[in-house]
Order: sequence, then structure tokens, then C-alpha cells
Amino acid sequence: MDNERFTRQIDFLLELDKLKDVRRQSRIRPSLRRENSAEHSWHIALMALVLGQDYGEDVDLFRVVTMLLLHDIVEIDAGDTYAYDPEGYKDKEAREQAAAERIFGLLPHDQTQALRNLWEEFEQGQTREARFAHSMDRLMPLLHNYYSQGTTWKTHGTLKSQVQKRMAKIREASPELWQFAEDIIDKAVRQGFLAEG
Amino acid sequence: MDNERFTRQIDFLLELDKLKDVRRQSRIRPSLRRENSAEHSWHIALMALVLGQDYGEDVDLFRVVTMLLLHDIVEIDAGDTYAYDPEGYKDKEAREQAAAERIFGLLPHDQTQALRNLWEEFEQGQTREARFAHSMDRLMPLLHNYYSQGTTWKTHGTLKSQVQKRMAKIREASPELWQFAEDIIDKAVRQGFLAEG
Repeated sequence: MDNERFTRQIDFLLELDKLKDVRRQSRIRPSLRRENSAEHSWHIALMALVLGQDYGEDVDLFRVVTMLLLHDIVEIDAGDTYAYDPEGYKDKEAREQAAAERIFGLLPHDQTQALRNLWEEFEQGQTREARFAHSMDRLMPLLHNYYSQGTTWKTHGTLKSQVQKRMAKIREASPELWQFAEDIIDKAVRQGFLAEG
Repeated sequence: MDNERFTRQIDFLLELDKLKDVRRQSRIRPSLRRENSAEHSWHIALMALVLGQDYGEDVDLFRVVTMLLLHDIVEIDAGDTYAYDPEGYKDKEAREQAAAERIFGLLPHDQTQALRNLWEEFEQGQTREARFAHSMDRLMPLLHNYYSQGTTWKTHGTLKSQVQKRMAKIREASPELWQFAEDIIDKAVRQGFLAEG
């Protein structure tokens, strides 16, 4: 065993505990408590496994799952930015790049490179895998918002047009999943969970 | 889109929210709150990705990661059984089989089969992938126990010999990781986190 290498790996893994205390805006059922970013990552990785088989054409699901397990770990330093918060988005990228530098940097050099590259690929959202991963990261919060009767949307005064714009990522991955998302958005408006506009 | 199939997939995925409210005995740092089984699954899936490269010889890591993401979902019905609770273990298998029947059964038939087979493979612990997955599921709680100064071990009066027996699964996967686990156990005893015996 290469002790220095192993120590770096364990340090990185122990650091990950902190993502379990980063709270997102989404509320989970049945308790309606706010979700943390670690359990969210687990959930959408499984979503990718289940839906990827049918809607992830020519997508390497192992890469998607790995991306999703990693995609939020920068929030350990940078915190979660609410999807519809323009202020928070202004310096989101700078905060997250600094976090990526530190956190992936805990690993041995080759793994720093490999995992950070995958995270960058997700961030850039250009490859088939990144697009499918993003669609999972959009679809689940939409479901959470809908099934918690729009609690988070109402708290923040979020509008239908904002949600539609954000969900456009789903269209890039799968027209069928996009159709489903549009239906949910329309139902949310009809049921008064989401404001028209 | 096959609506019936898709509805089953979404029902299964929404059901998974409940694993986020199943609490384990392990305590996470820095807050020392008890960990839930969803975030635990995320954590050890990443552990497998990081350590698998060096210690998972001839192991298909995608299968390992998928197993780890799935391995605890039966706890939605069956609850978490503390590793050193002989009473809880008496009917653990029956409770978990019934849970697997219901929960994997929410999926479309082909996915019920595929995911349940993978879960069974993990439970039986015979393949290289199942052994490596088990070693991750053992190693992380050992670290959590050690770094929380044995809080859970002390609460339950757990003994060194019990921990060693449980950690034997790590030896089956990797002699090097087993050496590391043994060192942690010895240090835990020396520091008074774990009782000799």
C-alpha cells in the first residue's frame, strides 16, 4: 500500500461527510424537511440508472452516475445556490471553481485530474452524458416541488416562466422527459402550486 | 413514451425519498448527528470509485456502485439493523426479503428483476463485486466510529472481537484494506474508544 496516496484518498472521503450538512431548498416527502446535497446526489444517481435505460440513448450510464455522485461536492465550500436566485448566481462559478480546486485537490494527483475533469464536463453540459446528468438534476427537484405542493416555489415567489427556462435542460437530453416535465409544470400552475407569469 | 412503464419508474423513484429518513447508528462529522441510509449509500459509492481503482482488482466498478446505491433500500420497510444487535438479526433476512419484494416490485418487470438480482448478489456476497461492495459498507462505518471517538460502540457496549469479526468482510476483498482496518481497530482500543474483549 502506498501510504501517502491512501491517506489522501481517506482525507478526501472523510471530507465528503460535510456535504450531508449542506441543505438544499427541495423538500422531501413525507416529512417535508429540507433535503441535503448528499442524499440528493444518491437519489438522482438512482434516477439515472432507472430512466437511463429508456431515455438515455447512447449514454454511458457509468459516467453519468459518477458525475451525479460528484456534481455537488463543491457545495461543501460554496454552499447550495437556489436555482432561481439571480444574486447567488453572480459569483456561483467563482465560488465553485475555488471549491473544486481545494476539494478535488485533496486526492492523489491522478484522481484529482480525473474527477475534476468529469465535474468540469458536467458543469459545461456539452456531452451526451453531461446533458443526461443535468436532466436528472432538474427533473427530481421538479417532482419534489410538485409533490410538496410548491412549498419552495411559493416561498421564493418563483414563476412558471422561470421554471420552464430552467427545465429546458431536460429537453436537450430527452424530448419525452421534457414532455413529462411540461405536463407537471402545467399541472402545478392549475393546482395553484406555481404562479403564472 | 410507455406511460404505464414510466409511471412505475417514477413511483419507485419517489418511494426512495423514504430512505432519507431511515437513521443508522453511525454518526457523521462534524455535527455528530446520526447518518441516514441514503447519504450513507452515496458516500460509500464514492468510496468505491476512489478506492476501487487501487484495491478493486478485476472488479467491475459500475456494478459495485450500482449495488451500493441499491443495497439499503429494503430498509425503507425493514429499518436499519444495528450491526452488533443479535436480536435484530434474527428476522433481518425475512424482513428484508419482504421489503425487496414490495419495493423492487414497484418497477417495470424487467427492472424489478435486474435490480433485485443485483441486490441478491450483494446480499449473498459471493462475487468479486459483492465482496468489494461489502468491504466499502464495512470500512466507512469503522472510520465514522473511530472519528466520533467510538460514540456508537460505547453506547452499545460493543467489543473489539465483534468489530474484528464484522470487518472480516474487508479481508475477503483486499488484504491491504484489511491491514488498514486492523490498525484502526487497534488504535480505537488503545485510545479507549472500543472495549477489549
